[in-house]
Amino acid sequence: MSQLRKTLLGGIAPLLLSGMLISQVAPVSASGASAHHGHQAIYARFTKDNELLRPRDYREWVFIGAPLTPNDMNDGSAVFPEFHNVYIDPASWAHWKKTGEFRSGTVIVKELVSVGTKEAASGHGYFQGEFNGIAAMTKDTERFADRPGNWAFFGFESYEARRGTLQADEACSACHKENAKQDMVFIQYYPVLRAAKPGK
Amino acid sequence: MSQLRKTLLGGIAPLLLSGMLISQVAPVSASGASAHHGHQAIYARFTKDNELLRPRDYREWVFIGAPLTPNDMNDGSAVFPEFHNVYIDPASWAHWKKTGEFRSGTVIVKELVSVGTKEAASGHGYFQGEFNGIAAMTKDTERFADRPGNWAFFGFESYEARRGTLQADEACSACHKENAKQDMVFIQYYPVLRAAKPGK
Repeated sequence: MSQLRKTLLGGIAPLLLSGMLISQVAPVSASGASAHHGHQAIYARFTKDNELLRPRDYREWVFIGAPLTPNDMNDGSAVFPEFHNVYIDPASWAHWKKTGEFRSGTVIVKELVSVGTKEAASGHGYFQGEFNGIAAMTKDTERFADRPGNWAFFGFESYEARRGTLQADEACSACHKENAKQDMVFIQYYPVLRAAKPGK
Repeated sequence: MSQLRKTLLGGIAPLLLSGMLISQVAPVSASGASAHHGHQAIYARFTKDNELLRPRDYREWVFIGAPLTPNDMNDGSAVFPEFHNVYIDPASWAHWKKTGEFRSGTVIVKELVSVGTKEAASGHGYFQGEFNGIAAMTKDTERFADRPGNWAFFGFESYEARRGTLQADEACSACHKENAKQDMVFIQYYPVLRAAKPGK
């Protein structure tokens, strides 16, 4: 049995036993299913070719921040257009609040949203329009033992794509490693994470 | 017994019986406690003077959007500086997904965040800095029967304030009534709500 397959089955078997796979389809608790059920909740699911299945219900995970790189401030073509709504899975959020670290199994989803308008009753600014992209990073000390920080980055070809493709280190990881403040994550732009960190 | 007091006790009694008040202190499920416990979850709690107690754990509610009105685009002084992270309580989110309407009891929290930087590895833009304000609106067909749309708006004097003060209609409600797309809520800027609306 391959290491990949062993890891996959090892991760899924306890979920099948406890019925967790079903509760993953339904919205999950923001307080972390792991604590309640006594085992680690799994939010990263992979195909046998190591593609990441598009996470489900991530809009019900914990929002951590919304960086904005509008096209009109980036020569008409931002690298990530334009709002980035960023979420962390509930079990890893619970772990973060307790330890201030990202557990193996952490999934962070970045959903991209266009700028809808720049004028509203509340003033001039930027207001979210329509969803137009998604990306995800996940940490796994076994599956991605050879990746920097054990994080893997996944790109989705279109907004509708069901599977994300593992990105080369130079595509995402290198920049995160150089610029992100803690463990490849840009916590300097995520006040929600900073405020919840123990000892803060 | 006053109407106010009756409403208050009527709402709290079943919670005491079921232990829900305790689970409200702890993080709550994003899937809506109401469905699970068989009664309506209460997120808006008031003092006897009709002040709104600062909602707890709203960062674990469902994020619906992040309008941005930066000071530098509003003559140095935006009405709401600067990012507005907006959340809906989990039970009302569950109701919205089912009906496309805001239930009596809905609480929407707007947390204000400064702009931290305008330059990052991902490009030019706006990146969240520090929390600096909070406001909330809540709908109640009985308690706020005489308010437009049965919505009440609460301002918090400082970011640390534990109690929000009911605002005059002209301070918030009038603008929401005139400009918000559905039932006083600016769903035109909240793609998360629009995408989850039944029949969408």
